[in-house]
Amino acid sequence: MKKFINAVENIAKEALDGLIAINADILKLGANYKFVHRFHINRSKVALISGGGSGHEPLHTGFVGKGMLDAACPGQVFTSPTPDQMIEAARFVGGSPGVLFIVKNYDGDVMNFEMASELLQGKVARVTIDDDVAVLKSTHSTGRRGVAGTLIVEKMLGAAAEEGRDIAALQSLGERVNRQTRSMGVALSSGIVPSLGRSTFTLSDNEMEMGVGIHGEPGRARVPMANADAIAGEMLDTILSDLSIKRGQECLLLINGFGGTPAMELHIMANAACKILGLRGLKIARALSGSYVTSLEMAGCSLTVTALDPETTKLWDAPIHTPALRWGM
Amino acid sequence: MKKFINAVENIAKEALDGLIAINADILKLGANYKFVHRFHINRSKVALISGGGSGHEPLHTGFVGKGMLDAACPGQVFTSPTPDQMIEAARFVGGSPGVLFIVKNYDGDVMNFEMASELLQGKVARVTIDDDVAVLKSTHSTGRRGVAGTLIVEKMLGAAAEEGRDIAALQSLGERVNRQTRSMGVALSSGIVPSLGRSTFTLSDNEMEMGVGIHGEPGRARVPMANADAIAGEMLDTILSDLSIKRGQECLLLINGFGGTPAMELHIMANAACKILGLRGLKIARALSGSYVTSLEMAGCSLTVTALDPETTKLWDAPIHTPALRWGM
Repeated sequence: MKKFINAVENIAKEALDGLIAINADILKLGANYKFVHRFHINRSKVALISGGGSGHEPLHTGFVGKGMLDAACPGQVFTSPTPDQMIEAARFVGGSPGVLFIVKNYDGDVMNFEMASELLQGKVARVTIDDDVAVLKSTHSTGRRGVAGTLIVEKMLGAAAEEGRDIAALQSLGERVNRQTRSMGVALSSGIVPSLGRSTFTLSDNEMEMGVGIHGEPGRARVPMANADAIAGEMLDTILSDLSIKRGQECLLLINGFGGTPAMELHIMANAACKILGLRGLKIARALSGSYVTSLEMAGCSLTVTALDPETTKLWDAPIHTPALRWGM
Repeated sequence: MKKFINAVENIAKEALDGLIAINADILKLGANYKFVHRFHINRSKVALISGGGSGHEPLHTGFVGKGMLDAACPGQVFTSPTPDQMIEAARFVGGSPGVLFIVKNYDGDVMNFEMASELLQGKVARVTIDDDVAVLKSTHSTGRRGVAGTLIVEKMLGAAAEEGRDIAALQSLGERVNRQTRSMGVALSSGIVPSLGRSTFTLSDNEMEMGVGIHGEPGRARVPMANADAIAGEMLDTILSDLSIKRGQECLLLINGFGGTPAMELHIMANAACKILGLRGLKIARALSGSYVTSLEMAGCSLTVTALDPETTKLWDAPIHTPALRWGM
């Protein structure tokens, strides 16, 4: 295992210290490394809080800032944060408009965010993200997994929360964006979980894991390596057969790297995806390419398509200032 | 070789098509894939043009846009663009204030940009970037190599060009920022050049290449793997022994991933670097972390330190809107 680390047991903390050190104008660390929150807290709006295991950076800590999350709770690598982290974050950044938790659909996260919600007093609601069309049930989840589409829900909800919408409206919007968002991923190599010191799975020189999860958990099939056009084709066929979107409609395309795949290959996948979506009669009105929802150093990528409407397009375009996404300010 | 590609011979073109397809509001493609230029060309300012081999994305094509480059000429993977690319880009985006070429110090790039400068008529000047302190001479360069510090020179010159400064002032500023900027890199694995289909070099499970170049060319030593603090320490010792910077002075820190290293590890390196620079009495006034100057899927990173002054700080902060760097607009 070759990684830029000091001690395995300190990885999550040192990564947080580094993130904060170079983004001190945006972020602050909560007590005992339990959460990260905005430098300028605004308790007059609904607070958006997400969280999940480390190893998926910049998700979620890199999405804290004006226009997106108010706080994020990082767990250890690929391990859910605990309810006390969520409770302390909610008490710290939440005001009278309440707290909305954004939860990726993994059993551990769902259970802990539910427990935190029950223990908290006041207005608390949850949105659960399950955008991954690869498998209907996985080793880590009951039902579909939450993957890169989480970024899109968090961005759009962030913009809507800045407008002052109430907690019920935000919850409803989050559920709507989640329904309009579908993703699928593929791995060319495994990431290495630091505490184990070895790959989560092993692929031969000519294999890929189609439909892989962001913890390296199995997808739908281990298949021979294919070219970019064929890979994008299979992913988009599955996504579009599941997404309510019509010819001529506008969509948002996210080409997400899993950590070990460079920009050049993501651009080739972007090109493949744009050609296919064009042939399907869809208009790519917005797009984003980069490694935003990662799985340690796993080589691979996912494609996400969100069916847009004027409201969600405006929310996507709204100004944002976080460590990982920044525009309009 | 497992990569997201279709045919090896089309990699550079398909990557450009993808980049343009998802950034159509910022970029356009020049004739015959010879260059990429801003969507809105402004010929009343000095045009900044850079270029180099593909495989280092987002450098340089991802840095074209308002506040940074006017055009970029991409070569094949790890191969210099040709003089006709540079000449056509200069004629297309250049106006009466002239054209400034930003050239990384590799023999092929230097020769071709010189030839283009000689063949072009009118005001043409060059700034050569040689920020890499790892080696004094390499297999690809006479003198020091130009690496991740190129991003910093391109950003600051971009802001200064938008202000309307003349070509001599910009050339002088570029040379000054280059002198104030030092970098060093380390590789944990090799990238795979697509046309060769194999790694450029091979490291054992416990080795790293200290001082590696961005084409996988040798650094100063192949040494046993060390922890993040020790790696950052060796890189910063070398950088700071070569950089004119005093205790108490402000600096810009760039933590650059080489393509196969995820954000979490870059954050740990950021933390290590911030601690060391703090102990040296330097103030990290600005920082940037991400994979901006890459070497295909190479695992590794570089650290870059620029000694700041009020002028260069202001230029760094100026609004920018490119595919890879975006803030303030």
